[in-house]
Amino acid sequence: MPLENAMTADFLRSAYGGESMAHMRYTIWADVADKENMPNIGRLFRAIAYAEWAHARNHFQELREQKGDFTVPAGAVFGMGKTVDNLIGARNGELHEIEQMYPVYLESSRFQNEKGAERSFHYALEAEKIHARLFEEARKSAEKGMDMALGPVHICQICGHTVVEGIPDVCPICGAKKEQFRTFAA
Amino acid sequence: MPLENAMTADFLRSAYGGESMAHMRYTIWADVADKENMPNIGRLFRAIAYAEWAHARNHFQELREQKGDFTVPAGAVFGMGKTVDNLIGARNGELHEIEQMYPVYLESSRFQNEKGAERSFHYALEAEKIHARLFEEARKSAEKGMDMALGPVHICQICGHTVVEGIPDVCPICGAKKEQFRTFAA
Ligand SMILES: [Fe+2]
Ligand SMILES: [Fe+2]
Ligand SMILES: [Fe+2]
Ligand SMILES: [Fe+2]
Ligand SMILES: [Fe+2]
Ligand SMILES: [Fe+2]
Repeated sequence: MPLENAMTADFLRSAYGGESMAHMRYTIWADVADKENMPNIGRLFRAIAYAEWAHARNHFQELREQKGDFTVPAGAVFGMGKTVDNLIGARNGELHEIEQMYPVYLESSRFQNEKGAERSFHYALEAEKIHARLFEEARKSAEKGMDMALGPVHICQICGHTVVEGIPDVCPICGAKKEQFRTFAA
Repeated sequence: MPLENAMTADFLRSAYGGESMAHMRYTIWADVADKENMPNIGRLFRAIAYAEWAHARNHFQELREQKGDFTVPAGAVFGMGKTVDNLIGARNGELHEIEQMYPVYLESSRFQNEKGAERSFHYALEAEKIHARLFEEARKSAEKGMDMALGPVHICQICGHTVVEGIPDVCPICGAKKEQFRTFAA
């Protein structure tokens, strides 16, 4: 169903901008972690960057009929520090999405009865909660100058759900099958 | 040298946002081209997405001392059409960067004597000129329902310079050596 409301379209564009910039900074910070000899934290950044890619793609798809050029205002975190600093920045960005941005966008999409946008915001919100926890775990290791312990990270290609405990038979967030998970292994 | 001027910092952030969203839409449109059985056009989108990644990373690095959260206004093209439509959108985005955005940002960075930003804007501007041409070539094929003829695409990891005629010994834009090119081969 095509979008019917301008406010929901604005929020999708802004979320798309935010996810695109998050994807970008995580891939940049991944390279920093690799250079600090923390390959697991580098891999965590790359896996989560892929989850943000899935969120951005979902928002972009919901906007499929909104063709043309737009100026998009979107939130982003900046700074190239050491990995421990980058992880703090990463977590802060996730917390903003979890506590402020996605709850408001989700509520608005429900209020405007925009089912596709609601699903896309819901998928993102659920994944960001896991991202914030994983970045906090990583930060605790990096603070001690150590790489984190990290097995394979699995990302659902449909919704960005992020799993470190083994792939579920069915994605608990979007219902996708096991085969839809992409694995980032050591 | 750290950035000294707020206007140049604003322009770097906006360019970072624009490059991040361009990177994102090209990877999404690459998947559309693959599904339309145009793997060369898919590969062109992925190669150019990588060049935009290099531009975004360069802008982000120039902003390394500007730590924290910002709301970034940035231009982006939207719409999920057929590949021929996506190529028109892609070229329009490049033309805006070539004719408006990067010339103004480049001039401003010179006026404010911000050498690092000037270099980063210059690298991007030169690559976008090539991107616009390649997307136009691709569009001509897609319009006839055909994939484009395309050999290996080489991207300079330092500046995003984009070459389809074989890797030069030295990047003509940034001076990087041959080994710094990443190849997207069929
Ligand atoms: Fe996300
Ligand atoms: Fe996230
Ligand atoms: Fe899922
Ligand atoms: Fe670019
Ligand atoms: Fe470009
Ligand atoms: Fe170069």
